[in-house]
Amino acid sequence: MAFRRMAVSIAAAALALGTARAESPLQGEWVDLTHTLDETSVFWPTAKAFHHDAESFGQTEGGYFYSAYNIRTSEHGGTHLDAPIHFAEGAQTADEVPLDRLIGPAAVIDVTEASGSDRDYRFTAQDVLDWEARHGEIAPGAIVLFRTGFSKFWPDREAYMGTAERGAEAVAQLHFPGLSEAAARLLKERDVAAVGLDTPSLDYGQSKDFIAHRVLLGAQIPGFENVTNLDRLPEWGASVIALPAKIGKGSGAPLRIVALLPKEE
Amino acid sequence: MAFRRMAVSIAAAALALGTARAESPLQGEWVDLTHTLDETSVFWPTAKAFHHDAESFGQTEGGYFYSAYNIRTSEHGGTHLDAPIHFAEGAQTADEVPLDRLIGPAAVIDVTEASGSDRDYRFTAQDVLDWEARHGEIAPGAIVLFRTGFSKFWPDREAYMGTAERGAEAVAQLHFPGLSEAAARLLKERDVAAVGLDTPSLDYGQSKDFIAHRVLLGAQIPGFENVTNLDRLPEWGASVIALPAKIGKGSGAPLRIVALLPKEE
Ligand SMILES: [Zn+2]
Ligand SMILES: [Zn+2]
Repeated sequence: MAFRRMAVSIAAAALALGTARAESPLQGEWVDLTHTLDETSVFWPTAKAFHHDAESFGQTEGGYFYSAYNIRTSEHGGTHLDAPIHFAEGAQTADEVPLDRLIGPAAVIDVTEASGSDRDYRFTAQDVLDWEARHGEIAPGAIVLFRTGFSKFWPDREAYMGTAERGAEAVAQLHFPGLSEAAARLLKERDVAAVGLDTPSLDYGQSKDFIAHRVLLGAQIPGFENVTNLDRLPEWGASVIALPAKIGKGSGAPLRIVALLPKEE
Repeated sequence: MAFRRMAVSIAAAALALGTARAESPLQGEWVDLTHTLDETSVFWPTAKAFHHDAESFGQTEGGYFYSAYNIRTSEHGGTHLDAPIHFAEGAQTADEVPLDRLIGPAAVIDVTEASGSDRDYRFTAQDVLDWEARHGEIAPGAIVLFRTGFSKFWPDREAYMGTAERGAEAVAQLHFPGLSEAAARLLKERDVAAVGLDTPSLDYGQSKDFIAHRVLLGAQIPGFENVTNLDRLPEWGASVIALPAKIGKGSGAPLRIVALLPKEE
């Protein structure tokens, strides 16, 4: 990556042909915040897992190699988008979420300690206010990412979610941290673009009413779930771009989420 | 979008609390170069089409709305990535394509006229050289996008691909423009990051040997197919970020591709 960037700079310098070759604003150090999507990916106990079905793999009659697969998956597995319509009737579908909700400055709120000592921890409004005491009020359009540290358990379903069992009965065994109603309401008030975290759900595992989902998605604020590598980001200064597959009428979608680190760090 | 950006600027100005609130380098005008992925999306005649299967849609016993779907699709349909392994044994899979091949300055080469008068047109090395005569040699790390104008036919399979039929026999009826071997070899020499276009395939519809795929993917240069809205981009000055679903061992993947327009235009 360093090599390619260097090569780009050299080439740009070498070419002074009339037209200016402005540096791309996207140049810099990028971090992938996405888990690989495969058969080991963690899905909700009731969701259909990911399947990768080979259609072709190998040499063809034409004398060249060729491989192609089909995929089957729930919209809600691995690193994924929760579109507003997932929990809000008539709200935006995956393809309708506007790009300005998917691109923006990242506010990373660390809740590792509380989440580490209590698997059922709910991030409080005070967790958000503590961040704001250090960095200023969260600006409208920010993408708020909660770092619980649970990503380190991936893809061990029991360690990550509280249970490795599948089916409706397993749902009661889910134990992982998530947003409290008060935290969700405060972020809605701040007019944030989106909210993400490194657990399977915006709501904590024991939630029965999914109130954080309902508050946020009900305000057209999408969710990014099963995010990873949040320990690579500063609390403030990185920028995020989170691009879901553009599924028509989707309630969610596989998400590729990446971050551009601040230039001076 | 304008409103949100304005709101962000106002908030940033209003908050002068110690820590600097640098403008995000990702701020600006973005264009979505992605077709919506749904049952109408154009797929290769032999590929499995996209299916969207509702699992839940409506009010729950808990008194809130909930919707969720499963998807089934070929990796190669709609706007998608061709990972190098699609045509090159042992080459990178969808999850392995590095971010610096997915993010970079966009060189948009217009071949609308020739493609409009000949559905079997193959972009020549001279098409690339003509672009370079105006903008300078294509820099290593650039993302080259060919604009044929065929996107306007989407999702009319016959107008877009030359046939609406499905199955192996329909392949011989495919007529749409793509890269010549010479153009592919020149772009490989230029060490471009990736190559995309607004048709179903890097190779033209009548190709039997898929030589453009083999040259580019064989050099670990991924392809972006069925891209759209290329008429919204200048020939040079925009930046592209193309994020595929991170499918483990994927030969391709649904792709969300967007572009940041140059600030002064
Ligand atoms: Zn979800
Ligand atoms: Zn393809």
